[in-house]
Amino acid sequence: MIITVTPNAALDITYRVPRLLPHTTHRVSEPVERPGGKGLNVARVLAALGHEAVVTGFAGGPTGEVLRERLAGLGTVRDALVPIKGTTRRTIGVVDDATGDTTMFNEAGPTVSAAEWAAFLTGYRELLAGASAVALCGSLPPGLPVGSYAELIREARTAGVPVLLDTSGEPLRRGLAARPDLIKPNLDELTRLTGSTEPAHAAEEARRRGARAVAASLGAEGILAVTEDATWRAVPPDRLSGNPTGAGDSAVAGLLSGLVEGLDWPGRLARAIALSAATVLAPAAGEFDRAAYEELLGRVEVTAVPRATS
Amino acid sequence: MIITVTPNAALDITYRVPRLLPHTTHRVSEPVERPGGKGLNVARVLAALGHEAVVTGFAGGPTGEVLRERLAGLGTVRDALVPIKGTTRRTIGVVDDATGDTTMFNEAGPTVSAAEWAAFLTGYRELLAGASAVALCGSLPPGLPVGSYAELIREARTAGVPVLLDTSGEPLRRGLAARPDLIKPNLDELTRLTGSTEPAHAAEEARRRGARAVAASLGAEGILAVTEDATWRAVPPDRLSGNPTGAGDSAVAGLLSGLVEGLDWPGRLARAIALSAATVLAPAAGEFDRAAYEELLGRVEVTAVPRATS
Repeated sequence: MIITVTPNAALDITYRVPRLLPHTTHRVSEPVERPGGKGLNVARVLAALGHEAVVTGFAGGPTGEVLRERLAGLGTVRDALVPIKGTTRRTIGVVDDATGDTTMFNEAGPTVSAAEWAAFLTGYRELLAGASAVALCGSLPPGLPVGSYAELIREARTAGVPVLLDTSGEPLRRGLAARPDLIKPNLDELTRLTGSTEPAHAAEEARRRGARAVAASLGAEGILAVTEDATWRAVPPDRLSGNPTGAGDSAVAGLLSGLVEGLDWPGRLARAIALSAATVLAPAAGEFDRAAYEELLGRVEVTAVPRATS
Repeated sequence: MIITVTPNAALDITYRVPRLLPHTTHRVSEPVERPGGKGLNVARVLAALGHEAVVTGFAGGPTGEVLRERLAGLGTVRDALVPIKGTTRRTIGVVDDATGDTTMFNEAGPTVSAAEWAAFLTGYRELLAGASAVALCGSLPPGLPVGSYAELIREARTAGVPVLLDTSGEPLRRGLAARPDLIKPNLDELTRLTGSTEPAHAAEEARRRGARAVAASLGAEGILAVTEDATWRAVPPDRLSGNPTGAGDSAVAGLLSGLVEGLDWPGRLARAIALSAATVLAPAAGEFDRAAYEELLGRVEVTAVPRATS
């Protein structure tokens, strides 16, 4: 069983408008509501790959209820979200049909109390006892200390469960010190963390600060992975166009499922790239196109990059 | 007791952003959620004026629940909304702090079934038995025939209860034929209805089509009222700047409360103008500034306009 933790889960609401005109009134399409937040997306993809996936984190208020109902409706992912007094945030996406572009309005999320965090930790420890891996995903809601992910990483290490951290800013910086097995920053996040804009150098620096391995996602350029033993570059076989929403979460699911299945690094990276590309190609945001995934999987190029001696 | 009917009630959600930039991602302020829809706004103002106000219409789904909770929280307005299977719509307003302008995203609203409409009619008839006036407010949700307001007007007339209709488009056109006591279109709605851009002429034409009286709201120019006996023009004493949200609903509350209290037309119009202006001046959208209202009330100019012989 794989755990994904989403401390700041969201109800994702998508509207379409014929054309977004600031400072005017729009009649919007029927809203599409999905359970959202990175960890929930990762869990959905893990389940689609045949893994038992459990989501935890927090849910509360009317939006939390809708989120849990929708999650139950999927029927593929186990819900271990911890109830809170606050209200689960909404993210609102407005798709401009004239250009295809999306304008996002993201709420900050509920305040999580110390007692709620303690209740979560108890459940998290119980889940770890039966887990083969854990992914810590996304932003922290207000009220949680920036060191919260570091605490969850230490718990996972104590339990002997491999842990992937996918976050940014101060929670990433603080999380590194607790020595996660893998982080998956994009280049922008990696640069903000290390001050370096050169992917291989920045990834090495992130390893020096505590990450056992770094899979840096470089958008259309694929993934650069720096591990203890080697450096790998994995590149999608074709230039893709489509909706990149959820592509990073699919890559996390690829890396994590590959780890649990004992794939080597090239195997894990090929899966991450193929899943990510199949997500960009899918018509609905955050879904992946299974036929595209299977077709792409054999064509992803993974090459070892000679390591600079330092 | 005054009834306000809001067939397409809404949960009004307001966000603030430092600056609205299309096709980017915004972190928004804490959402402000209010029970919305024209009739709910009218009822709140009526209650603030000391009238017993009952709101009816439809509410359903998670947003309907939040709306009813917020309404109960006000503690001033009686909730006679009819439960439905569909989900109450949201209206989302994004205030751009750089310019003060608002961008609106309005959902269409739930589909109301024939059985739900029948349940509503039963309750409406019961309410009419104890009512001194009724206001029919806003758009019709999907599923309701465009002639629905006409039916509600006929019921009110049968019960001997004066009825005000504040809607637009086809529901207004069809409603007129049922002979409401008063309509309150703005000039744009009146022009679409009659084809005439000249307020007095358009209002006369609307009377010819069935309205007993017409109070045409002309924005900063005030209100032009054409009744059976006279034509009046009421003008705000000062040029105002502020948020016009809800100003029209406050005018409806002024006209309706004045009618119930037996005020003459100049008295009703003075109240409508003063309430409307005090709503523009209030810091929060849709509220009114009571001190401003009382100060303005004595200074509204209402003049009789000589009627053109036709």
